[in-house]
Formats: sequence, structure tokens, C-alpha cells
Amino acid sequence: MKEKKLKIIPLGGLGEVGKNMTVYEYNNQILVVDAGMMFPDNDMIGIDYIIPDFEYVKERANQVVGIVITHGHEDHTGAISHLIETVDAPIYSTPLTNGLIKNKLNRRSPGKEAKLINVHAGETVQIGPFKVDFFHVCHSVPDGVGLGIDTPAGLIVHTGDYKFDHTPVDGRPTDYGKLAELASRGVLALLSDSTNAEQAGWTPSERVVDAAFDRVFQQAKGRIIIATFASLISRMQQVLDTAKRYDRKVAFTGLSMVENARIAKELGYLNYEESQVVSAETALSMPESKIVLLVTGSQGKHTSIVGRLAAGTNRQFSIQEGDTVVLSSHPIPGNEESVYQAINRLMEKGAEVIYTDVDNVHVSGHASQEEMKLMLHLVRPRYLIPIHGETRMLRQHKRLAMEVGMDERQIALVENGRVIEFKHGEMKLGERIPGGYVFVDGTGVGDVDRSTMRDRELLSQDGVVLLNLFLDKNNGKYKDLEILSRGFIAQEESTELFDELRQRIVRLTLSPSKNMQKEIQNLTISFLNEETKRRPFIFVSISKI
Amino acid sequence: MKEKKLKIIPLGGLGEVGKNMTVYEYNNQILVVDAGMMFPDNDMIGIDYIIPDFEYVKERANQVVGIVITHGHEDHTGAISHLIETVDAPIYSTPLTNGLIKNKLNRRSPGKEAKLINVHAGETVQIGPFKVDFFHVCHSVPDGVGLGIDTPAGLIVHTGDYKFDHTPVDGRPTDYGKLAELASRGVLALLSDSTNAEQAGWTPSERVVDAAFDRVFQQAKGRIIIATFASLISRMQQVLDTAKRYDRKVAFTGLSMVENARIAKELGYLNYEESQVVSAETALSMPESKIVLLVTGSQGKHTSIVGRLAAGTNRQFSIQEGDTVVLSSHPIPGNEESVYQAINRLMEKGAEVIYTDVDNVHVSGHASQEEMKLMLHLVRPRYLIPIHGETRMLRQHKRLAMEVGMDERQIALVENGRVIEFKHGEMKLGERIPGGYVFVDGTGVGDVDRSTMRDRELLSQDGVVLLNLFLDKNNGKYKDLEILSRGFIAQEESTELFDELRQRIVRLTLSPSKNMQKEIQNLTISFLNEETKRRPFIFVSISKI
Repeated sequence: MKEKKLKIIPLGGLGEVGKNMTVYEYNNQILVVDAGMMFPDNDMIGIDYIIPDFEYVKERANQVVGIVITHGHEDHTGAISHLIETVDAPIYSTPLTNGLIKNKLNRRSPGKEAKLINVHAGETVQIGPFKVDFFHVCHSVPDGVGLGIDTPAGLIVHTGDYKFDHTPVDGRPTDYGKLAELASRGVLALLSDSTNAEQAGWTPSERVVDAAFDRVFQQAKGRIIIATFASLISRMQQVLDTAKRYDRKVAFTGLSMVENARIAKELGYLNYEESQVVSAETALSMPESKIVLLVTGSQGKHTSIVGRLAAGTNRQFSIQEGDTVVLSSHPIPGNEESVYQAINRLMEKGAEVIYTDVDNVHVSGHASQEEMKLMLHLVRPRYLIPIHGETRMLRQHKRLAMEVGMDERQIALVENGRVIEFKHGEMKLGERIPGGYVFVDGTGVGDVDRSTMRDRELLSQDGVVLLNLFLDKNNGKYKDLEILSRGFIAQEESTELFDELRQRIVRLTLSPSKNMQKEIQNLTISFLNEETKRRPFIFVSISKI
Repeated sequence: MKEKKLKIIPLGGLGEVGKNMTVYEYNNQILVVDAGMMFPDNDMIGIDYIIPDFEYVKERANQVVGIVITHGHEDHTGAISHLIETVDAPIYSTPLTNGLIKNKLNRRSPGKEAKLINVHAGETVQIGPFKVDFFHVCHSVPDGVGLGIDTPAGLIVHTGDYKFDHTPVDGRPTDYGKLAELASRGVLALLSDSTNAEQAGWTPSERVVDAAFDRVFQQAKGRIIIATFASLISRMQQVLDTAKRYDRKVAFTGLSMVENARIAKELGYLNYEESQVVSAETALSMPESKIVLLVTGSQGKHTSIVGRLAAGTNRQFSIQEGDTVVLSSHPIPGNEESVYQAINRLMEKGAEVIYTDVDNVHVSGHASQEEMKLMLHLVRPRYLIPIHGETRMLRQHKRLAMEVGMDERQIALVENGRVIEFKHGEMKLGERIPGGYVFVDGTGVGDVDRSTMRDRELLSQDGVVLLNLFLDKNNGKYKDLEILSRGFIAQEESTELFDELRQRIVRLTLSPSKNMQKEIQNLTISFLNEETKRRPFIFVSISKI
């Protein structure tokens, strides 16, 4: 068989964090690895979430031979519901990932049947021309895998999110043996996680969290409330284990926490006796020193449980003197402010608050610099494609690779949508296809553009003022003027200002003109700007009655 | 003389960072220490800045005997222009602080004359019943002072912002001798900076930045662009010194940078030969390896030089391949996202970017835990009032003080506006006076309230839709309907949606009702929510023509 080109196209995960998606294409057959979403930056106003622009895949929907998902986090699974609207290929993943995906798809698009196929780490699956080895990697959710993707054009290693934890909570270290075996077969290219490329050293083991939890449980007199991500199944296990040692019952609180715990337990990824767990309701009626509430909302957002506890608006229970709140997570970039505000408010309500700045109650799920170097030495790839990271992290990853002896020409530092071609063992950068964002807002996918967002930003700066002017239809004379505003100025401050504006507009109507609307608009803009130095949106409507 | 009560009232600087202000009151005479502003959090939408609520001082304007400013940063000086609108007292500060204040007041309120009085560190000034010792402290702006405030009710030490740098750039360490001397007189209470209370160890000396700058200058082939705060005069000195060693000219770029450098040089706080400095224009015409541009905008904001360079919208010059950009500052909490976005964009434009995650190009100006303990041991106060910090930092400061042997009852952990009373050497918490925020937006001081901001937030989520319905005034029949929107949906997506809405409203008008406006409003809300899952602001106006 004549060797054909292998194309690798990152459609997400480069230049910004989250929304990971990579396309592998050989002989017009396509394998999609991961289909994630990301949460919007602070300047993407009013957007719910963002998915990759996978128009390229949509246009070739019938060429897709399979979708492989490396692990169960939203930034690798969140766009699946959108992808399967046009792509009807089987979805391969390990049992826990599979369970988490199924649950999410049921919630988002109930009737829809997806072809979910279970693969265990250690197994090999032939998907079209792609022979895919699933191998175990440690990460902050159990049952994550990396992939060996063998194609007629060469062998690729795709790490997914990983770390080299020697003492993981589930006892299963990253599969060094498989990495070495893949290396012995000769790896053409390594696609490797860059998230922590700025972190020197080695990411601490999940085990360090155990010691911190021990300190917390030892000192806590009252209730313990632990906030973390609902996907951090191993953290749940650590809470359950520590609670057992200190004779406290655990209550999972919040829909996603309860459901993920249920799925993980059913599939054997979470181990505890039923008697160890109680409902939140039961917990709240028990002695305070006997319970742990496990909640979501570690990012402090107003709508989350922790955000509501901080604001004092949570219905089921409130913070009381003697509570210990543990934030077992890092702030996601952009959330620092809401997290720290929540910490302040919780303290002011009387809680002891333990967070990563004061104790090791969280560790990262991603490899740091020394682990990234180890990955390079284990796999010994001919080429490196840094994935999963902002531009600055991809750059650092490249720098690390050069430190361990790779040449600049062996490293592809590319943007989303850049086609990377492999033929006769050589890498070449190909064309650029669309690889941007698609904004999802409510049910609308892609119907909010940058101009709409700019308007939203302007609206949020100085608000909106509406003028409904009524003129006599016989003589064009002033009859009435309704002035409404939102987000512009406090109600009680507006009366005088709007009275003055009204007088000026009445004066303007005395000399009729063809361009009355424009003139009123300009007068209002300059008057309000002069008086308040603000520039609200202004709408003028003139009716003759 | 019968001993009277000393009152200390923090009006800013507690519970949130910035806008520092403390009131000292004895025998109906008031000394104000610092008058700062803070920049708004991300959820204070459309606000320019925030100042303390100093109604208490305004109401007692004629009792104010003096204002003392500890150093020249905005969070200690930014509210002076507002304060002197009602308070006519002299303002005491060291020469550089004085120069920076004068310049700012001239810009904000030109004609206004303030009574600025120069005091050198080491001097003592009697201000009403307060005998104030000004003593030198190290911080990230030169000429900062702490205060010994002697009153008939006891001696208070107020640190201001400080660190214990043994090798400061200007060669002047914090005045240990004065602190010891004050301690020997017996200190009733210490008000001490809590900013870095979560940082273990000792804040590195400004000198570590020199070594990092050396590495940067050694490796840079092209232009070097260094971004920092315009108030970081010692950082300017370090840039000038390093540039001289590497035979590069320095150009100050941006109004505040140029003006602060001028003031600092005039007053002897910045030392360089005139030939070392060129205008930005000249620099840009010189060989790239011969220049350093010193710019503001290290927080990456869109409107700053660095933000514009990252976005490619800077007029005077653009980033080119070979440029080295140094961000010599930390992100202010809440700015992490804009800083990291700017770094990514600068890299994508071809610049090498050096920031604190990859080299020590910045150090904090505030004391870390071991320094805070040293301050406690040097001053040996009877009481501690942690100031300058969010709630979580004040708490940590309290914890540190207890570690070095203070008792919980010796520490006042209070909120802004809490009166702390001292009489017969005993501390007692008094009443609570208003101590909140005042929002400044445009020229309006306090005319934007939380409800206005909530409207702004809602407007920014889903935008606004306006309906102007015209009915026949004779028979009430539908004549016309104008639908306008902003920030709701992309223009090209709206036509079909609004056509459908129009048809539904026409149908509604067929059955006239008294509550037409409300009915149209409800119909529009539920229709748009059903179709888009969004909830824009909706304004309905009905005119009979």
C-alpha cells in the first residue's frame, strides 16, 4: 500500500485552556480525540460556554470512523452533545468516562442515543486505519487514558491530561511500561499536556492532601464543609477515608456531586460502606462534630453552593460560628477574585476557612516541568506537538523540550486549526482551517458575535436611556415625553437630571426639523455626558399622536 | 489634665485591599492618616473607582487638625482630591510623596490650592494633640514612612506599607533604630500592614530583580520593553542602571511614567545622567539593540500601552519579532486574566515575554510573615490592629501575632467604620459608624447604587429589546411595530426571530385589552426565552396614531 499523509489538526486546546479537540485524518478517514468546552473569559459577556469550531469535521461527518474521549472532564467532554448532532460515529472511552458522558448526554439531550463503547486501559482497538492503544494515566479524575495511535504513516502518542503520581489515591500509577513499549516501537510524534509547563519540579502526589485533611479534621470542632469539583472522584475518596477515621458521616450535596458519586460507586471507582454516607438533610440534623458536607462551588461563583453560603443566600443551610470550610481546589484563571471574595465573606460569617494558600488541601492533576521532561525521555518522539495550554505554556513546553536535547525544528508550536502533515516520517505544516471559538448562549450556538458582545459590554458600562417623544400630529408640537433608564443612575438621582433634559428637548421641538430624531439623540448624548461623564445607550422614538 | 479617650477608626483598608484611610481622634481633634482609592472589582460594573465613606470626617471637617500621607501610592493618596473638597487641613508628607500628590491634584482639580507641607523621615511634627514621628520604611516607592503617633492616651505605631529590605535600591533600610526607640517608650497599639500575611518567609529584596534584569539584558537581541507601575521609582532606577551597563538608552513612555520620573529626578530620588535618557520618538529611530522602552500597563488592560501592544492597536509602535517584553509587576487580584491574555498575544506577535512566573523580574513591596513577626518583636505593642488587607489576610496576621505570644484579647480584628477606643491604657471596641464604599463613576460620586449595578449586570448578560407598537387611534388596530435590540443576538440572526415575534404581537392586538402593554411584555419575554433561553431587558411602548 502506498503510504499516505497523516494529518493532525488541533481544533482546541491551544492558545487558550479548555475546549480540547484533536483531529487525526488518514486516507480520508477521521478519528476525533476529545470534544471539550470551556467557560468564557470575563470579557466574553453573557456567554454560557464555548466549544471548538469543528466545521471541518461536520463537513466530513460521514468520514468520521470514531471519537475517543481520554477522560471525563468537561474540557474534554463538554462539546460531545454538539458533535453528535451531525457526527454519528461510535464514542470510545473507559468505563468511568463512559458513565459520566452518558449521564451528561441524558441531561442535555434526553431522547438522543449515542453509541458509547467501553474500552479498558490496556486494551487496543482498531478504529478505521487507526490502531489505538489505551493506556492508563494519573489525573485528577480516575480512569484517564493516554493513547498510542498507530497509523500507516507512523505511531503517535497522545498523552491527554496526565501526571506521574507515584502514590495515587486509586493505587494505579501512570503506565510507564506501556510508554516504554510504545517508545521501543519508535514514536513519530508526541502530543503532550502543557498545562503546568511554567511549574518547576514535580507536581505533588494526591497523597499530600491526606495529611492536610488530617490536620483539618483534627482541629475542627463543628461541621466540616469541603468544596471541590464534582469530577474529582479521588478527592471524594480521600474525604470519605478521612471522615471514617474521625468518625464523621459524609453527605454529598448538590446534583452533580450526588450523581457523579453514584456513577463512580456503581462502577467501582469509589469505595465506601453505605452506612458512611447520609443525605444532606440527615446530616444537618446530626451533631455538628459528626458530619462532613461535600459540596460543589469551589470557584466561589454567586450561583454555586459556596457562593450562596458566602452571600448568606443558601436555602438548605447557612454558615455558623464553628464551621470549617475547606476549598479543595485552585481558582481557575479568571476566578481568583470570586474565590477570594467568598473566602472573606465566609470568614466574616464566622467560619474557619482552609484554602491552598494556607494548607495543601489541593494539588494539580497535571504534570510539572520534571514530569514533562520524563515523558519526553520515556517516549523519545521524533517530533513534539505541545497541546493543552495557553500560548505561554506551549512556549515553555517547547523550551523544556529543547533543554532535554530536541531541536527547534522537531517542535510544532501551532495555533488551533493548523494542519500538521506527516509523510515519509517528516513533519510539515500545512494549511490553516477555521479553528476559532463558537459561543454558546442559551440555546443559541454561534448566534452571538463579537459585535453583540461589544454592545453588551457598553450596556454594562453606563446602561441605557429611552426617550419616547410624542408630538401633535396636526401641528408637530410637543405633547409628552417619556424617559426611562436602566443601569444608568440611581433612581433618586435621576429626577432632576431628566427634568432638565426634558426642558431642553421641549425647547428643541419648538424649531421643527427633518432630523429631529438625530438632533434629540445628539442633544441627549452631550447633555448626559456633560452632566455625568457617562455614555449610556440612547434610543429615541418619536410618535405623532 | 484629665485623660481623655483616644479613638482610632479605620475607614478603609480593612476587608478589602486599597482605599486606605484611618482616623485618629482625641479631645475632638482629628488626624487623618492616608486617603486612598481602590479600583473596582469585576462585579462593580462600570465604576471608575471607589473611595472610603468619610462622612464622619466631613461632618467634623473643622475638627480636622491635619492629614498625614505615608507614601505616594494611589491606594493611599487617591481620595485626597475628594477629601479636601470639605476638609481644609494641612497635608503632611515626605518630599517625594508631596511631589506626587501635587502633580495628581493639579491634574484632577487644577485651580484648587492644597496646603502641602514637607516633612522628612526622622522629623517630628506636633499636629494638634498628636506628636507625630515620621520614620523611614522600605516599600516599592521611595520615601515611604511609618508613624509614631504620641497622644496623651498613649503611643501608637502606624506602619503604613512596609517591608524590611536589607539591600534596598536607594540604600535606605527601614528605620530599625526608631522602631526600637518607640518600643522603649512603651507602645500602646501597633497598626500594621497585613497585605502579605499569607506569604511564608521573608519578602525578597528589590536586589533580586537586578539579577533577573541582567539575564534579560544579556539575552535580548532586539528592543527591550519593560512594563511596570509608574509609581515604582526604584524599579526605574534599576532599569536605568542595568541599561547603562549594557549600553542602552532608556525612553520613558506614557504620561504618568514621564511625569513621575521627572518629579523623582527633580527631588533627587532618581539618579541618572541626562544623556542616558531619550524620548520614545528618538528611541524608536535608534538601533533596536540600543534601547529600552519603559512603559506602564503591566496589568494588561485594553486601554494601557501593554494592552494596546498585545492587541496590535498601539499607535506609536508595534511589537515586532525580536522584541523582549518584561512585565515587572504582579497581577493585581482580579487582573490575572487580562495579564495572561496580554502575555499570550505578545508572544503570538513574536515577542519574548518575561514575567514573574518565569523569572524574578518583580518582588512585592510588602512584608511577609517573618517580617511581620519581626515588627511585632521590635515594637512590642500592648495591642495589635491588623490593617491593609482583605479579611483573610487580617486573620492570618492575627494568627501570626498569637504564634509570637500575643493573646486573642490583645488583637482587634475589626471592620471598616468600627470605633476602637483607648482609655487608661485599655482597648475597647466602640460603636460602628458608616464605613462602606463610595462609588465614583464619571463625575458622579455616590450616585450609582447596587441596584443600578445589578441592572448593568443584567443588561450585560442578554442585552435589551425595544418594541414600539403603533395602533390606530380610531379603532385600536395594529399599524406598525418597530423592534430594536442591542447586545441580544447577532444582527443577521435576528430577522427571522423578530418576524415571528411580530406576527405573534399582531395576533395579540386583534383582541384588545386594557393591559396590552403588560401582555406584550409577557408574550415577548416568554417567546424570546423559549427560542433563545435568554432574558433581555424588554421595553414596550404603545402609541395610538
